[in-house]
Amino acid sequence: MERHFERELEVLKEQLLLMGGHAESIVLKAVEALRRRDETLAHAVFDDDRRLDRLEIDIEERCVRLLALQQPMARDLRFITAALKISNDLERVGDHAVNIAGSAVKLAAEPMLKPLVDIPRMAELASGMLHEALDAFVGRDADTARRLVRRDDEVDALNRQVFRELVSFMIEDPSTITHAMELVLVARNLERVADLATNVAEEVVFIAEARIIKHHADESAAGDEFGRS
Amino acid sequence: MERHFERELEVLKEQLLLMGGHAESIVLKAVEALRRRDETLAHAVFDDDRRLDRLEIDIEERCVRLLALQQPMARDLRFITAALKISNDLERVGDHAVNIAGSAVKLAAEPMLKPLVDIPRMAELASGMLHEALDAFVGRDADTARRLVRRDDEVDALNRQVFRELVSFMIEDPSTITHAMELVLVARNLERVADLATNVAEEVVFIAEARIIKHHADESAAGDEFGRS
Repeated sequence: MERHFERELEVLKEQLLLMGGHAESIVLKAVEALRRRDETLAHAVFDDDRRLDRLEIDIEERCVRLLALQQPMARDLRFITAALKISNDLERVGDHAVNIAGSAVKLAAEPMLKPLVDIPRMAELASGMLHEALDAFVGRDADTARRLVRRDDEVDALNRQVFRELVSFMIEDPSTITHAMELVLVARNLERVADLATNVAEEVVFIAEARIIKHHADESAAGDEFGRS
Repeated sequence: MERHFERELEVLKEQLLLMGGHAESIVLKAVEALRRRDETLAHAVFDDDRRLDRLEIDIEERCVRLLALQQPMARDLRFITAALKISNDLERVGDHAVNIAGSAVKLAAEPMLKPLVDIPRMAELASGMLHEALDAFVGRDADTARRLVRRDDEVDALNRQVFRELVSFMIEDPSTITHAMELVLVARNLERVADLATNVAEEVVFIAEARIIKHHADESAAGDEFGRS
């Protein structure tokens, strides 16, 4: 029984890593579709999102089964409840990628406003954060997780920069408004992906220390509350 | 023991209803702060958000304790895992209200572009959806929950309407761009609140029927995937 439980937990970890890998790559793929104005690639994102949806259901079912049959205690219990929340976060990453791919489809027929630099950089950062957060989760590595929570600021700063730049484009040439608005929304979706990676990192600290940092972090960053988050 | 468990479940329900009530009112308060250009009210939203954060932690702790000590089975187990996710959704509602209140602060010193009509309407709809979703949750009422999932479309339609109207404002008069962009972001935050209410409703169907509708609903609405969601 004990050994069976350990094996089931291993499978759960593997499924989460798999789902994390899909979440990382769907974000990069969506932004690549935008950058290359590639509608086919954008449609691949819609398919990938459905794969993430199915993985979430599988993980949820496994967690409920583990809770029901194994009645785990303390550390394992927290690990399983965290897994439930993390799979939900990763599923939302897919939704943001779908939004970005939708923008890619809309913009595919138009000339670029300018070569995209900051948006692909945001996608790399957010996707890298997802990777590290999942690694920290399976390794129960609270130190890495804590560093990640701070890295979210970098993505927020890029988001504000993209926003300001696009607003000046719009002011200079109102014919760019619809296009630029789309890119503002893309940047916001990426910023939300970084937030979701941060959520995962917070869960890691939670299960490692059975202590909730996220709202303390909010409090110490109270001066930021006017910033887009 | 059995009776104690029932009582603990009742307390959990009450806490969720309380948190739901706060989530409803914080959304209305944030939009009221925007409409009245009232900075003091906007700051009250920041305080209310911290109250939501604390409630989430309380609920999470109670759920983990119930899972650990009572080892509930089947229906109760699903109820508790759903409560975990719902408190997370409600906490996110607070984050969206904080974003809106941030916009209210930014726009408080400026004249209105036009009297706000659709945005307060979106806030009422989204807040009403939260109320019904929580009621359906504690009453395990899957029919109401299923109707709610469909009502999300109304909020999406308003979001698109607000977006189109604001873009035409910007095109007509580029000096309105920064202001109008802020309102676009407000509408998007409200649309996300309605999505979160929909998530809660999906959890209700899940626990009522132990069946996951959300991704099936996604599939049948595949034609919408280019719409902002």
